[in-house]
Amino acid sequence: MARIVQKYGGTSVADVERIRTVAERVKKYHDAGDEVVVVVSARSGVTNELIGKARFLNPAPNDREMDMLLAVGEQETIALTAMALHALGIPAVSRTGGQAGIFTDPAHTRARIVRIESGNIETALTDGNVVIVAGFQGVNAEGQITTLGRGGSDLSAIAVASAVRAEICQIFTDVEGVYTADPRVVPEARKIPEISYDEMLELASLGSKVMQARAVEFAKKYGVVFEVRSSFNTNPGTIVKDEVASMEDVVVRGVAVDKNQVKVTVSNISDQPGTASRVFRALAEAEVVVDMIVQNVGRGGRANLTFTVPRDDAERARKAVEPVLDAVGGGEVNVVNDVAKLSVVGVGMRTHSGVASTLFSALADARINIQLISTSEIKISVVIDLAGADEAARAVHNAFGLGAEATVLSD
Amino acid sequence: MARIVQKYGGTSVADVERIRTVAERVKKYHDAGDEVVVVVSARSGVTNELIGKARFLNPAPNDREMDMLLAVGEQETIALTAMALHALGIPAVSRTGGQAGIFTDPAHTRARIVRIESGNIETALTDGNVVIVAGFQGVNAEGQITTLGRGGSDLSAIAVASAVRAEICQIFTDVEGVYTADPRVVPEARKIPEISYDEMLELASLGSKVMQARAVEFAKKYGVVFEVRSSFNTNPGTIVKDEVASMEDVVVRGVAVDKNQVKVTVSNISDQPGTASRVFRALAEAEVVVDMIVQNVGRGGRANLTFTVPRDDAERARKAVEPVLDAVGGGEVNVVNDVAKLSVVGVGMRTHSGVASTLFSALADARINIQLISTSEIKISVVIDLAGADEAARAVHNAFGLGAEATVLSD
Repeated sequence: MARIVQKYGGTSVADVERIRTVAERVKKYHDAGDEVVVVVSARSGVTNELIGKARFLNPAPNDREMDMLLAVGEQETIALTAMALHALGIPAVSRTGGQAGIFTDPAHTRARIVRIESGNIETALTDGNVVIVAGFQGVNAEGQITTLGRGGSDLSAIAVASAVRAEICQIFTDVEGVYTADPRVVPEARKIPEISYDEMLELASLGSKVMQARAVEFAKKYGVVFEVRSSFNTNPGTIVKDEVASMEDVVVRGVAVDKNQVKVTVSNISDQPGTASRVFRALAEAEVVVDMIVQNVGRGGRANLTFTVPRDDAERARKAVEPVLDAVGGGEVNVVNDVAKLSVVGVGMRTHSGVASTLFSALADARINIQLISTSEIKISVVIDLAGADEAARAVHNAFGLGAEATVLSD
Repeated sequence: MARIVQKYGGTSVADVERIRTVAERVKKYHDAGDEVVVVVSARSGVTNELIGKARFLNPAPNDREMDMLLAVGEQETIALTAMALHALGIPAVSRTGGQAGIFTDPAHTRARIVRIESGNIETALTDGNVVIVAGFQGVNAEGQITTLGRGGSDLSAIAVASAVRAEICQIFTDVEGVYTADPRVVPEARKIPEISYDEMLELASLGSKVMQARAVEFAKKYGVVFEVRSSFNTNPGTIVKDEVASMEDVVVRGVAVDKNQVKVTVSNISDQPGTASRVFRALAEAEVVVDMIVQNVGRGGRANLTFTVPRDDAERARKAVEPVLDAVGGGEVNVVNDVAKLSVVGVGMRTHSGVASTLFSALADARINIQLISTSEIKISVVIDLAGADEAARAVHNAFGLGAEATVLSD
């Protein structure tokens, strides 16, 4: 008997049959005596369909009206989910974001949750109901409907779990959990039973795509334990929680490959204070998000500045930097497209040495050339040739013995 | 320059192209300096689609959840309509029923409007906006979303027009207005330029199907002048307002035929106090709505009680009455299916005699037999054979000279 929050994404509620399956799963927990809050997304496809209609009518639709429009997706799902539970004899009530007391700032289409007044949910739970909350949406102080942006339903679920002090927040999705590597690339990849928030953040932002970093950061900040698991079976997933000492026994938790970045080099710039800031101010003004940054000094007081940006932003980055080339005394902007970023992540790195040398040796043995290196406390990233990325992932996964470790829990 | 409310039904906002057409029409009024409140329905088909999903999951969906579900239809339309207006350079804001201050009683799926707090709409109008309000929906005192039942968007529009003291409420629909008869049956039928609430009520409830009686009654109660007109052209429609003296110059405003009723006769009942009430109590308990009622005395203190009910309720009516036959000393229940009800309606009847005789003569000349007669202050109805109904309508329309009257306004 526990209080739990369950979040079901768009593919889990894609049609009425799947909504019925969700209701059957919720019933099991309710029957076992759990107090269940269900957070649901819009049916997959609905949001894009609505955006399509909006853009037909207006190439630049107003943000407030966009939120008004998009909020209907989840509202449909909560009502249908409640009806499906009623059909199974389970008392249930639906709540829009506003009705659930999810208050946000006024930033339409990318609002931040400022507080949750969970009294309404608490009362409904105490009365024996399953409470079904619309994810992705809230209201601002003026009662206007707001939405939380991409991945917002995960954030809603984590925030509600925090507000109602749930024991766990279960994120049901179309993957089984977080893996030591992408199983499509590395056949020996294992599901990770437990992982720290920081490791999850590094793995997610590095291309595991399981959850948006925002939701993980929120969970970390408020200490919400959550589990990423499949909505298509009953296997346990990956539990994400605060770092515990035993986690450090594993030096590397996983290997992530991000093929969605390109490498930009500004060559031969003057090696003086303010040069880098000039370049990155130009990029920030163009709203280009920069990931890895490396600067090395060349000959004669000149330097090369290299960074990675999302593939879609490559041209924008070039256009942003070229006008400031003169000011920084730079030679040219060079974009290399066929690269990938490979990272090894693990909180155990803090207390274990030799991670870098194992990584570099593994890559060398596989004849993979390293173009760029960047390190943080729990991560080492390298930029390598795109063509060798998959082979590199297998080699590194093997070098750290990630496929051989403890058996995956399963039922 | 006037303050107006425009209501667009489901067919007028059926897809993004039509929503754009609606926006273009609204723009004309806005450009002319009018303050415009737009009330929209869900896209046609959406409500039935949502009901279908609900019934798949639950044969008897909960009323509160049904309202939560159905309210998404209008919410989608208001946002898209606002975006379409923005694209034309017109400032516009959307409002859900709740945001527009439409408060209802708690009766989910058939709520009644209890008040409208129009301050929110007024402010937005004063700021120069077109205000787009979701029809059909409101909120109860607890902030739960409610819906107003069939034809609810008309009611929303009339109620909002009353609250903001609009000069006129324009109901844009797929018909040109109210006609002296069904033009598909009577080719000479004319559009009626002006009509009183009472005449509209009689004509609408008699099968013109232009508007739900509820909305007309609300308009009558609060003196809201409204116009029924086409959303597919710019022709003026039919203006519905309080009776004025000149309306009485026309004795009969229109001829309505209702083919959706059947005649039920309970024969040979005892002609004693309480007999009729016994029968109609049974019908009321079975929720059968009875329209015409006629009782005539037969031989030997026995009587025949005849009434009409909607075709779909015929079997329910029979089943309701049969158990009380013994108690009323009745012989049998007889349902006649192939009947139609023809009515002539006009406030001028009050001051003109001879309407009944003109009607009966016209029917006699056309060799139409009258099975039942019922009269009210501004209406005479007869039940006739279904097969002769169309011919009867033409004969009566002609007898009252309805096709020959003043020219229809048009532009």
